[in-house]
Amino acid sequence: MKYCSYCGSNSIAWVVPAGDNRPRHVCGSCNEIFYQNPKIVVGCIPEWEDSILLCKRAIEPRYGYWTLPAGFMENEETTQEAAERETLEEANARVELLGLYTVMNIPHTNQVYMMFRSRLLDLEFGPGSESLECKLFLEHEIPWRDLAFPTIVHTLRLYFEERRSARYGVHLGDIVRDAHRAIFIPRRQR
Amino acid sequence: MKYCSYCGSNSIAWVVPAGDNRPRHVCGSCNEIFYQNPKIVVGCIPEWEDSILLCKRAIEPRYGYWTLPAGFMENEETTQEAAERETLEEANARVELLGLYTVMNIPHTNQVYMMFRSRLLDLEFGPGSESLECKLFLEHEIPWRDLAFPTIVHTLRLYFEERRSARYGVHLGDIVRDAHRAIFIPRRQR
Repeated sequence: MKYCSYCGSNSIAWVVPAGDNRPRHVCGSCNEIFYQNPKIVVGCIPEWEDSILLCKRAIEPRYGYWTLPAGFMENEETTQEAAERETLEEANARVELLGLYTVMNIPHTNQVYMMFRSRLLDLEFGPGSESLECKLFLEHEIPWRDLAFPTIVHTLRLYFEERRSARYGVHLGDIVRDAHRAIFIPRRQR
Repeated sequence: MKYCSYCGSNSIAWVVPAGDNRPRHVCGSCNEIFYQNPKIVVGCIPEWEDSILLCKRAIEPRYGYWTLPAGFMENEETTQEAAERETLEEANARVELLGLYTVMNIPHTNQVYMMFRSRLLDLEFGPGSESLECKLFLEHEIPWRDLAFPTIVHTLRLYFEERRSARYGVHLGDIVRDAHRAIFIPRRQR
């Protein structure tokens, strides 16, 4: 941020505003404060019988890697609408949502993932503009080493583990980075 | 938004960028696209024996109305850290989080509320700079007509209902407005 989007001034400072406790972009001319907050990424696990639908990414980051349909929640929609829209956009697929499944914080990327379980309504799916390919996978076919993001890996791990008993919880946890990789830390519900 | 925060140009248009499907603020000079996304509000229900802690707001909106400690999630933190921080800032209170409790979409204000159940660690609480007063309430003492927001009303309704059996779920729902008031629509988990 170099210019104030309200007054056009270039006197933008990175300072702690009066009454606040952390630095923000503040305009030295009109005093406007610009807040930046985490974004919500919403998606789903589309089921069809024993398979689930994955999309091969046609965009960066992680071009060519497999993911569940998911993307940034937009203004004026609900998390459920966002999950359905992303599934339609990325896989041309229609789903019925079954429930909120994972909520994962990624503090180092300022994101919160919210993934739903869902049921594919038909087999009329295919890659949208952000996907190279969309395909159903049985559990033993999941390309674990070629999944795009830790949130996807850990959501699918929880899902296949719980699917054996067909009892699904709602899981909260954090993705944290150590020197080598991203680790999922579950936060138990009591 | 009147000026581009990257290049300072005043040729900001509200248009659908190429490859997108909804209008954004786009700079006609440097082509930067400015996305706006929903914000996350995080808070908790602090329990102490049969009471819960509420804060009387010292700021607008809803100055003088009662609320649970809650506020905007910040970058570089988790939802749990945000809930603890807001409780400390608004009520000078330390809590142990017990679990995620409600997730409420408010599409007309571009917010998603995430409220946790929690346990007050001690009685050393008191109003922070955004509160006029902080006080413990038994269920029959809750000032239902003077609660600040529909999200707080519906989170507390669910909480007291479930407290009778001491079995708590995770609740997803939407706050929608009709002509007269805000209605809570629960979205059932299956």
